[in-house]
Amino acid sequence: MTVSRVINHPEQVTPELKQLVEQAMAILHYRPNSAAKALANNRTNVIKFLILEDVDTTEPYYMTLLFGIARGLDRQQYALQLVTDREHLDLDHADGYIITGARSTDCQWIDQLAKPVVLFGENRHGYDFIDTDNKLGEQQATEYALAKNYQSIIFLGIDVREPFEYSREAGYINTLQRHQKVPQIHRMGNHSHESQHFISENWRKFARNTVFICASDRLALGAVRAIQQNGGRIPNDFGVIGFDGVFLDQVSNPKLTTVKQPVVQLGELLARMLLQKIAQSGAQQGELLVPPKLVLRGTIRT
Amino acid sequence: MTVSRVINHPEQVTPELKQLVEQAMAILHYRPNSAAKALANNRTNVIKFLILEDVDTTEPYYMTLLFGIARGLDRQQYALQLVTDREHLDLDHADGYIITGARSTDCQWIDQLAKPVVLFGENRHGYDFIDTDNKLGEQQATEYALAKNYQSIIFLGIDVREPFEYSREAGYINTLQRHQKVPQIHRMGNHSHESQHFISENWRKFARNTVFICASDRLALGAVRAIQQNGGRIPNDFGVIGFDGVFLDQVSNPKLTTVKQPVVQLGELLARMLLQKIAQSGAQQGELLVPPKLVLRGTIRT
Repeated sequence: MTVSRVINHPEQVTPELKQLVEQAMAILHYRPNSAAKALANNRTNVIKFLILEDVDTTEPYYMTLLFGIARGLDRQQYALQLVTDREHLDLDHADGYIITGARSTDCQWIDQLAKPVVLFGENRHGYDFIDTDNKLGEQQATEYALAKNYQSIIFLGIDVREPFEYSREAGYINTLQRHQKVPQIHRMGNHSHESQHFISENWRKFARNTVFICASDRLALGAVRAIQQNGGRIPNDFGVIGFDGVFLDQVSNPKLTTVKQPVVQLGELLARMLLQKIAQSGAQQGELLVPPKLVLRGTIRT
Repeated sequence: MTVSRVINHPEQVTPELKQLVEQAMAILHYRPNSAAKALANNRTNVIKFLILEDVDTTEPYYMTLLFGIARGLDRQQYALQLVTDREHLDLDHADGYIITGARSTDCQWIDQLAKPVVLFGENRHGYDFIDTDNKLGEQQATEYALAKNYQSIIFLGIDVREPFEYSREAGYINTLQRHQKVPQIHRMGNHSHESQHFISENWRKFARNTVFICASDRLALGAVRAIQQNGGRIPNDFGVIGFDGVFLDQVSNPKLTTVKQPVVQLGELLARMLLQKIAQSGAQQGELLVPPKLVLRGTIRT
């Protein structure tokens, strides 16, 4: 403690003590390291990233988010611990938490955490969070489809009761209503084979000049396959717009027009928000919705 | 230092001092945290993961490896810092380094590092490393293609002069030679459009009953597309085997038969090897080649 005071607050110690400590440091080849600084500040300099849902380790979305968080923390000399095993959560030895995959049933548990928390993903419970502006993303997608004169604009959604999905649907619905058009939403599991099956089964109901606005690139990928199998022409007669823009959009053939989330940036912003919250002794940080970008590729008229 | 001695080596202090420190700890609500322990051991409890090549942030391979490393470190209460910006490497404040993307020209620089290092990826410079057993993987793939009675077995390689590629080619060459067959290798950039273009351009040269053994899933994806475009039947007349098994294999249509690397496990093993090297004061750990697994799906006869 004396050493740390000499290093961090030399004005608080006597010149004699300062000299004594500095001599001792020189003899011991002592130089303050991050652990010493962390200890002096009663900090661990460690942030824990908690993923509260099953991680399909082949899913690039969370991997990319992790990458962004790690990059954001490194700039501030913080280190990261990843916690994926919900049964064995070790919550000690951290200055704060970034949590993703939290559900309403997790609120009580989150409220008990002693250190600052920020969430990834929209929530309606008052927690500080960062997310893509899901509503804005689907507004942009729907506006674009309208501007390109597709007549029928259908939304393929994910059948989960989560704020991100409600926001995406709201962006679509509001935009169609502004143009006096009737929304048409079909929800399904978030797998390409589900959207592929749905479109193939109902192929005769879809006239030419239809766009499928999809709540994920997985659903968009299945839509593209179904249209191709049924002999529909992309993008002249049928358009597809995805959502996410993490890898899958680029391996589709043709590449997907999609609402691209800035996932690495979201990770960096999560790190920054949490570090600021820690520096401000846990003060409320609010909500941050980051605008996504409509990336135009081969699955819609340009 | 006295506090840490009381906690970690109570036998070295007098009973009076022990009591005094324990009273002080109780008054201050002091409990040793990871920073204190790290400081007592002259450790930072931080590992740095250095990616020495341009990271295409949409590439799931490194993201998945990062995930594995983070998971391996967390089990040991270590934290991770990610370093991707080669221009601004901060190498202090770490107990060791995991390095990937190192080239021959990096040896001098690596040799100067003061803390233990393990590499991801085969190297011929004597550094401790972990990698997939690339040679074994292509041996398995080639043996399987032979067993399924494909007549012509062609290798599509990546045009880089790296040990991992030499090992994959060696696995293919050795297996064919054991069967008195002549290897046929074509190298190209690691992009699906390159393999797609190559096969389409040379389509007439490929008889029915041909397998393309590909050094990556990207190349395999392009091969599948070219065969489909040219009306070849997969897997009856043409087979394709990829390499990697990280996500791309699963979004291909049909899904790719591939040599799957255990990437999450590789990350965990890297963490474990480095922590052991640290615990052993930098002792040599050697080389660890982890067997990959041939995953049978729709692009080869079963």
